[in-house]
Amino acid sequence: MKTFPVFARFPISLFSAAFFGALAAPAPAATLGGPLNLEDEGSFFVNGQSIRSEYPGASLVTGPAPAGNITVNQMYVHYRVPAGRRGVPLVMVHGSNHTGMTYETTPDGREGWATWFARQGHPVYVVDHSGRGRSGFNPTPVNAVRDGGADPKGLPTLFLGPIDRAWANFRFGSEYPKPFPNLQFPLEAIDQYLAQLVPNAETTLAGGGRNTIDALAVLLDKIGPAVVVVHSQSGVYGLDVVRKRPNLVKGLVSIEGGCETLNQDDVAKYFARVPFVSVWGDNSIGAWGVNGNQRREGCRHAVNMINGGGGKATFLLLPEAGIPGNSHMMMMDKNNLQIAGLLRKWIGENVR
Amino acid sequence: MKTFPVFARFPISLFSAAFFGALAAPAPAATLGGPLNLEDEGSFFVNGQSIRSEYPGASLVTGPAPAGNITVNQMYVHYRVPAGRRGVPLVMVHGSNHTGMTYETTPDGREGWATWFARQGHPVYVVDHSGRGRSGFNPTPVNAVRDGGADPKGLPTLFLGPIDRAWANFRFGSEYPKPFPNLQFPLEAIDQYLAQLVPNAETTLAGGGRNTIDALAVLLDKIGPAVVVVHSQSGVYGLDVVRKRPNLVKGLVSIEGGCETLNQDDVAKYFARVPFVSVWGDNSIGAWGVNGNQRREGCRHAVNMINGGGGKATFLLLPEAGIPGNSHMMMMDKNNLQIAGLLRKWIGENVR
Repeated sequence: MKTFPVFARFPISLFSAAFFGALAAPAPAATLGGPLNLEDEGSFFVNGQSIRSEYPGASLVTGPAPAGNITVNQMYVHYRVPAGRRGVPLVMVHGSNHTGMTYETTPDGREGWATWFARQGHPVYVVDHSGRGRSGFNPTPVNAVRDGGADPKGLPTLFLGPIDRAWANFRFGSEYPKPFPNLQFPLEAIDQYLAQLVPNAETTLAGGGRNTIDALAVLLDKIGPAVVVVHSQSGVYGLDVVRKRPNLVKGLVSIEGGCETLNQDDVAKYFARVPFVSVWGDNSIGAWGVNGNQRREGCRHAVNMINGGGGKATFLLLPEAGIPGNSHMMMMDKNNLQIAGLLRKWIGENVR
Repeated sequence: MKTFPVFARFPISLFSAAFFGALAAPAPAATLGGPLNLEDEGSFFVNGQSIRSEYPGASLVTGPAPAGNITVNQMYVHYRVPAGRRGVPLVMVHGSNHTGMTYETTPDGREGWATWFARQGHPVYVVDHSGRGRSGFNPTPVNAVRDGGADPKGLPTLFLGPIDRAWANFRFGSEYPKPFPNLQFPLEAIDQYLAQLVPNAETTLAGGGRNTIDALAVLLDKIGPAVVVVHSQSGVYGLDVVRKRPNLVKGLVSIEGGCETLNQDDVAKYFARVPFVSVWGDNSIGAWGVNGNQRREGCRHAVNMINGGGGKATFLLLPEAGIPGNSHMMMMDKNNLQIAGLLRKWIGENVR
């Protein structure tokens, strides 16, 4: 077991001014690029359902619990509403093995997209998929096998990609541990990055990932029209949210998300009205895995279909825009705010 | 299955001003009691360890992963550093079945302790226990049974208390569904509350809850001296953090947390220097469950031991202070900010 040094960019001295008041100590460097002045900030849940659990497990302190109702399928939503808000609201949705942390502070301690967009005036809603992170998961299928003799073969698989898999899938390099020579991902902080990966426990929920799609639709019902930002696994979720709430998605921003379910019918029904941008880094090129050539070219095809059907879609291949070296986790890459700036420009030009 | 209406206090119209700019629409009511002006805000992890997982599970898209290294035991830390900070930093630690959401927006959409203390000038660090929420958990023991033929009896129990258990343990009433007549908990929003409960998946980690204690110690090494606020299950964690870092805990605030491990040796070694307050609501009275008479009177005894040993400890029984009706979840109760004010006063009077 290897214990890694944590939070290397924030030595004790960084925050020490707080403990000595505002005396002689210089103000510590902040993560953010400037003040974050919020009119509101907080969190809530959408899409929770109360179900009976026959196997709610045992507290190590108070012992086994009898069967009863637990809440599942809920989605945690964290909102930041800037003072003097002046931009369209954004909903930010992460991908496989991740949580909303995707859009918070980068692994090397720089500003992420959530606060950056808020500081530009956009209300920002960051979610954890149903079944992931603060959204919890359903423990019943596991406890049932442990306590009740249900068939172990019926256990949900709880996928958490090891570093080798993460390395290749998230496009830090073709094969661990060799990085791409032009890589923008802050590999010096990879231990912080790996710490944010969590098991895909939505497999414990009836309906799996569909709960997140349902929850996103309900979220839009609550907050009103917004631009939805999806990533990787949630690329196809974004397409489904457009199908469910075409009048509430002001634009769909897909960061190396899949487009494979888009069809001609969707274009006529929905995407003629919903602006769409599919963003790809150049480390997707040459890869035939999940986040490589096949998925990317599928999105190029989808963009062409939308534009051919009277819609407004953009295929943004970063190296073609003169921006080399981006990984699949471009919201954390060293040039993450340059890409955020491109997206903000796209929103300004395409979203009414 | 019952689908509950979500976020009832925030109808669509609440945020609608955002979508029509600053035109005629009145400014929506905010969750917060005033602006939250932050010098810094973000998140990081402490205490991650890289271990080999023989059973990292299968992605539903990319298939089973070969064995490899995953990160476990990490603790998610979310920090808010107010502009013009002038108070001692606070670390806020939740209890069983909860995450850091405990200290965020209340179930009925009022301000929680995290932002309130930040708005009074305190840097605030809210954590998710190792094995819970955004800290992730170790899926290996579950996948091993599913994929490898490990003994189902070796599965970790994943406790998630059903509503009946939550109702009694968290002191909304003696028995579900009857509430205490003077209850301060916002039962009208109990669906939002139940949505924040998550399984105690730290049972998947070697060391279980001890990882959170270790992580809290490492957190203090990083950020420097702070007041540590613990709740319920983490009451005894707080005592261990004092034992591990007596020079970095400026004060220990225990919200209906257990004191049962405190002994005379601790008092002489540590608590003669670390101010301590144990806070109890009057709905703990008469209860013989985990959060009732026995635990509370154990804390009264601990406070007396500390004061008898030259330390500075306070036993704060809210009904004795003229504040009736508080549940175990007093950071969410209707008078949550009144209690926060009492704690801030205690900090001002006791923490150097």
